[in-house]
Amino acid sequence: MNAMLHTAEVLGVLAFAGSGFIEARRKRMDAVGCFTVAFITAFGGGTLRDLLLDRRPLFWVENQEYPILIFVLSLLAIPLLRYLRHALTESALEWADALGLGLFSVTGTSLAQEADMPLFVCAMMGVITGIFGGVLRDVICNEIPLVFRRSQLYATCAFAGCWVYLLLNWTDASEAVALLAGTSTTFAMRMLAVKFNWKLPA
Amino acid sequence: MNAMLHTAEVLGVLAFAGSGFIEARRKRMDAVGCFTVAFITAFGGGTLRDLLLDRRPLFWVENQEYPILIFVLSLLAIPLLRYLRHALTESALEWADALGLGLFSVTGTSLAQEADMPLFVCAMMGVITGIFGGVLRDVICNEIPLVFRRSQLYATCAFAGCWVYLLLNWTDASEAVALLAGTSTTFAMRMLAVKFNWKLPA
Amino acid sequence: MNAMLHTAEVLGVLAFAGSGFIEARRKRMDAVGCFTVAFITAFGGGTLRDLLLDRRPLFWVENQEYPILIFVLSLLAIPLLRYLRHALTESALEWADALGLGLFSVTGTSLAQEADMPLFVCAMMGVITGIFGGVLRDVICNEIPLVFRRSQLYATCAFAGCWVYLLLNWTDASEAVALLAGTSTTFAMRMLAVKFNWKLPA
Repeated sequence: MNAMLHTAEVLGVLAFAGSGFIEARRKRMDAVGCFTVAFITAFGGGTLRDLLLDRRPLFWVENQEYPILIFVLSLLAIPLLRYLRHALTESALEWADALGLGLFSVTGTSLAQEADMPLFVCAMMGVITGIFGGVLRDVICNEIPLVFRRSQLYATCAFAGCWVYLLLNWTDASEAVALLAGTSTTFAMRMLAVKFNWKLPA
Repeated sequence: MNAMLHTAEVLGVLAFAGSGFIEARRKRMDAVGCFTVAFITAFGGGTLRDLLLDRRPLFWVENQEYPILIFVLSLLAIPLLRYLRHALTESALEWADALGLGLFSVTGTSLAQEADMPLFVCAMMGVITGIFGGVLRDVICNEIPLVFRRSQLYATCAFAGCWVYLLLNWTDASEAVALLAGTSTTFAMRMLAVKFNWKLPA
Repeated sequence: MNAMLHTAEVLGVLAFAGSGFIEARRKRMDAVGCFTVAFITAFGGGTLRDLLLDRRPLFWVENQEYPILIFVLSLLAIPLLRYLRHALTESALEWADALGLGLFSVTGTSLAQEADMPLFVCAMMGVITGIFGGVLRDVICNEIPLVFRRSQLYATCAFAGCWVYLLLNWTDASEAVALLAGTSTTFAMRMLAVKFNWKLPA
């Protein structure tokens, strides 16, 4: 179970970093810019959560291998970019991003609950953890954040998954079941929203 | 006195949330975007203050009803928007915003002084608390912050109110008198600046 | 040695504040906007570092004279701007900025190491301290951060200087030698990058 969580977390970090890297390339940033935007996208949400909850060491300080991994991948990515284009298809990125969203949101809620936050705040902390990396990416790239524009459901999926987790937790389900159900809810809902183009009313 | 303060705080939160909501609508964000921008505008300044002063629980965690209120109002606002337009006149918003600015700035200064910050830092913390919600709103909406553009005095009113509070505090006036005088100074100065179009030289 | 460090720090703060002030003027902000952007540029990187490392009091709270200095200079700068233009040549600003970059980065790394962060994180904290003031300046001024655009090496110089510091520290060189060598590396590399137009590949 723990190894599964860890694998999912690494996948989520990679997906978020990838979306940051690609956005930075589109804005014609240089290698340092691409690495930094990748870094901020992957760790921004978790860092904000840790600051708000006053948790130390920070998530990426505790797991020093995460920023190193992104650093090494950024170095490799630039010469390999031509080949990567075939591997990093739009849909591969969307799968990984939805997984990251689910996992980050639900673990964010779980950490907020450990810190004895009130219920609604727990759900908000989950959503913040899940979406804020992408918000910071878009702010730095000088765009209105994608999450807030009229597009397929995103934050809403995170919000739903967090409440599923909280509900199961309240019924004394085991932590593992609650985490899994919450993450799956967010993941499945996000994949369906993309597939069937679900949007909120304007 | 305490009930009065609380009422004023709720009014301030609502005014700031309202300005975030309206700005997000102008940028054609969806419901999630409108709620999040309203949330950030209302709580951004106080959250930054709490992070800088290392205060926990955060202002909106301690008063969980504030984010819930904004969540519910965001849900209601969208169907009611047509009717709200008549109630939410420009001038009603300006009154509430000036009240929020005064109250947030002066209580920010008061909390900084409780935390034994040096004098000038107390005034800065007050201004940060008062204006940063709006700054974050504008940054997320991809605008140069309104507060920094050449417009009617805003941060200057907050700064003046904070110094009135600090001065009265130094003369051993009661906390209630100092809070009231500081808030009134900021409020009155801001309303006059809007009415007579006071601006700083370019 | 300590007086030298302090002088260099004041120079760095002034250089960063100056670059914020000039950028804000270019965007036609008023006096409050210019002061605030100068303030954020000068203290943003160190503040983020202090938040991430959970250090209190913050750098500019401990040295209250720094924000006061910038406040007074902002008041003076506006009437004096015509004369300042001759003194604040492009190259004077570049010297001071490179000095600030070197000093802030290396002291950031040093503080991270004192807080027992892992090695790679220490280097990252140094770079964050050195560059984030400028990143925030550009985000507030609604630009893609200069550091990330394809321009002469900047963050790379900070990164190199931090590793020189860490390496010397590891070889048990005295703190003073390590600080001096790290700062000089960043400073010299940055000045050379500007002079010979060194850029990263696109």
